[in-house]
Amino acid sequence: MHVVDVIHAKRDSHRLTDEQIDWVIAAYTRGDVADEQMASLAMAILLNGMDAAEISRWTQAMIDSGEVLSLGDVGRPLVDKHSTGGVGDKITLPLAPLVAACGAAVPQLSGRGLGHTGGTLDKLESIPGWRASLSLEEIAAQLADIGAVICATTPTLAPADRKLYALRDVTGTVESIPLIASSIMSKKIAEGTSGLVLDVKVGSGAFMKSLDRARELAETMVAIGGGHGLATTALLTDMSVPLGRAVGNALEVAESVDVLRGGGPADVVDLTVALAREMLALAGITDVDPAKVLASGEAYPVWERMIAAQGGDPTAALPTAKHVENVVADRSGVIAGIDALGVGVAAWRLGAGRARKEDAVQAAAGALLLVDIGESVEAGQPLLELHTDTQDAVAGARAALEGALLITDEPAERAQLLIDAVRS
Amino acid sequence: MHVVDVIHAKRDSHRLTDEQIDWVIAAYTRGDVADEQMASLAMAILLNGMDAAEISRWTQAMIDSGEVLSLGDVGRPLVDKHSTGGVGDKITLPLAPLVAACGAAVPQLSGRGLGHTGGTLDKLESIPGWRASLSLEEIAAQLADIGAVICATTPTLAPADRKLYALRDVTGTVESIPLIASSIMSKKIAEGTSGLVLDVKVGSGAFMKSLDRARELAETMVAIGGGHGLATTALLTDMSVPLGRAVGNALEVAESVDVLRGGGPADVVDLTVALAREMLALAGITDVDPAKVLASGEAYPVWERMIAAQGGDPTAALPTAKHVENVVADRSGVIAGIDALGVGVAAWRLGAGRARKEDAVQAAAGALLLVDIGESVEAGQPLLELHTDTQDAVAGARAALEGALLITDEPAERAQLLIDAVRS
Repeated sequence: MHVVDVIHAKRDSHRLTDEQIDWVIAAYTRGDVADEQMASLAMAILLNGMDAAEISRWTQAMIDSGEVLSLGDVGRPLVDKHSTGGVGDKITLPLAPLVAACGAAVPQLSGRGLGHTGGTLDKLESIPGWRASLSLEEIAAQLADIGAVICATTPTLAPADRKLYALRDVTGTVESIPLIASSIMSKKIAEGTSGLVLDVKVGSGAFMKSLDRARELAETMVAIGGGHGLATTALLTDMSVPLGRAVGNALEVAESVDVLRGGGPADVVDLTVALAREMLALAGITDVDPAKVLASGEAYPVWERMIAAQGGDPTAALPTAKHVENVVADRSGVIAGIDALGVGVAAWRLGAGRARKEDAVQAAAGALLLVDIGESVEAGQPLLELHTDTQDAVAGARAALEGALLITDEPAERAQLLIDAVRS
Repeated sequence: MHVVDVIHAKRDSHRLTDEQIDWVIAAYTRGDVADEQMASLAMAILLNGMDAAEISRWTQAMIDSGEVLSLGDVGRPLVDKHSTGGVGDKITLPLAPLVAACGAAVPQLSGRGLGHTGGTLDKLESIPGWRASLSLEEIAAQLADIGAVICATTPTLAPADRKLYALRDVTGTVESIPLIASSIMSKKIAEGTSGLVLDVKVGSGAFMKSLDRARELAETMVAIGGGHGLATTALLTDMSVPLGRAVGNALEVAESVDVLRGGGPADVVDLTVALAREMLALAGITDVDPAKVLASGEAYPVWERMIAAQGGDPTAALPTAKHVENVVADRSGVIAGIDALGVGVAAWRLGAGRARKEDAVQAAAGALLLVDIGESVEAGQPLLELHTDTQDAVAGARAALEGALLITDEPAERAQLLIDAVRS
């Protein structure tokens, strides 16, 4: 088989055969297909698409490029969650302990952030002592004991995806539904979970800006799950405004702890409960109400044990920023919009995210919203706190927020958070 | 400027701006844009196209990546020819001395062959002693003295094109009219000629299999020439059958010498004269009939001087193959088809061409046709000689010829050689 023939096939809008897909993924993983050849193929896939059977096979070939985790019997049903990424999306932090408190086990293998959406591991690493890397044995033991693990994905899991994802990032080939769907699902299937709930974000702060594209992505992933024996549900949720009030690493940990103690912003609580409900349904646990468990604070001790098991001190003070300043209202009126992308880019520029993989993030940097949509404000009133260790970054953050906080004279309310569900 | 933004623009079917084109070509040439990024952009260009203004700017940016040759005043009008490549296409060999004999100067900077079409330099290197590399001063002196130079292109000429061409070859992005046209024209414009005649091939042995695509390529190149002040004419010519009887390096040199001495196959003579006529028209030489000059043998002494000036011995015996065997007619009838691609691939496999850039070619390998379309043959009659130094290669060559030599009971004649002309 020759890679140029495979590229020509997709370039000329033909289906790739099973043999072509298996070969090209394996050859790329071992380095026989060069980055420039895979980049050309990825662009041809982005522009000419793949059908459901091709996407399923592509996913399987990526799974087959590495190991499938075998966690063994941890004494509870395994169920996992994945978010396509959004601004202020700390839901994994309260969700994993909550679902564990309700009786399932959550093996949450996560990544670091790149661009304006934060990474779950970056957030947890703001907790003194916490470590992201666990062995397979440690993951299994922690699942059996506590029911929740949030840790770094292992290098042996779908290595083709790791390589391809890094390539797509620099070659303008990220926004392909077949490639996004197969990337996410290959890792989740290889992880060995038996149920998966997807939080597919739509809006300015999400990858998918339109509901049609988000729905297509959700349906594609649910279909891949079905074809691979993984019970999968997708929720379509709003990402036109940030989730909660906190955007940044330590800031989001603090807000998550509020939620785990029975408080916190309503949207974070609502989404955490909605996702928990779907996960418990896939796990076959129907006699527990996650809303009640969360409100009671019963999930908080699970969080403490989960953090402590990975070396973290859940009672330690979180880092605070050297420099904090306010963004104030330039007029009186009603908050009508808080643009997720603007706030996400501001937090990123303040140091919460990274521009390149090798960059470090600031634990304490980010943005803290002081108001919500629909609130009346006076001119000069603080709307948002900017937190950073590098004061020079503030100007760039303020520029990103230009027009992001909309004040009108009309009443306003938040967009609906839960838009729809896609079930297999 | 960021390369991913440039890729996104073309991926999303936007025009590239002048600034984007200038920047991406310059950054690719100096290595700041990686091969995988240019490969992705090339595929986006192939699938989404470029308009005339983008193609013109792309060509200029490739010219600007290197030097423009300045040959100075050689005492004659400079005019050049380029063929898009075909099987048995040795036309440059008789054409350059012929046009020189008619009073113009031909600076023919050529390449080596890759795939089933031979390279002009490979052919000439079958002449004992001949060398392809000349300095700019040697080229200018030889043009002033003899009027014809066929030599290797210099590394300083459009280096972006050299790099991009090698990349396209391995990434399935060769067959893009904007990229083919800008590649050819950037080199020819940088060469500093004042007139250019293009031989755009169409048919099984050519890059362009359909007349529509060949015409689009011809029109695109003529438009680029016009936009850059280079008088350009394109002939559309048939490449469904090989040109002449000889396909291979030394075999084609021998046939070219026959033509220069006033003999040779009619199609080679006709195409050489037609191209010479167009070149002389662009050079403003209207009082010489190249058909008469060629028939008289007056161009042959120019050939001898041209070869000798580059160290070659024009009177030396050409290499002959260690092994020659026949392909014979499997039935009696009339030769109705000689497929150019089949014969080209056979000659390639016999050793006349290379599969990879670093391969060597055999000087004596190739195929020699013994019959022409329309000729009656008897079963068992030899139709074609296979020449090679590696007898093992014969089976592969025979396989490539399967079905390539068509014998019918009906009368048959060659397709029209000269299909059309495109002039600015």
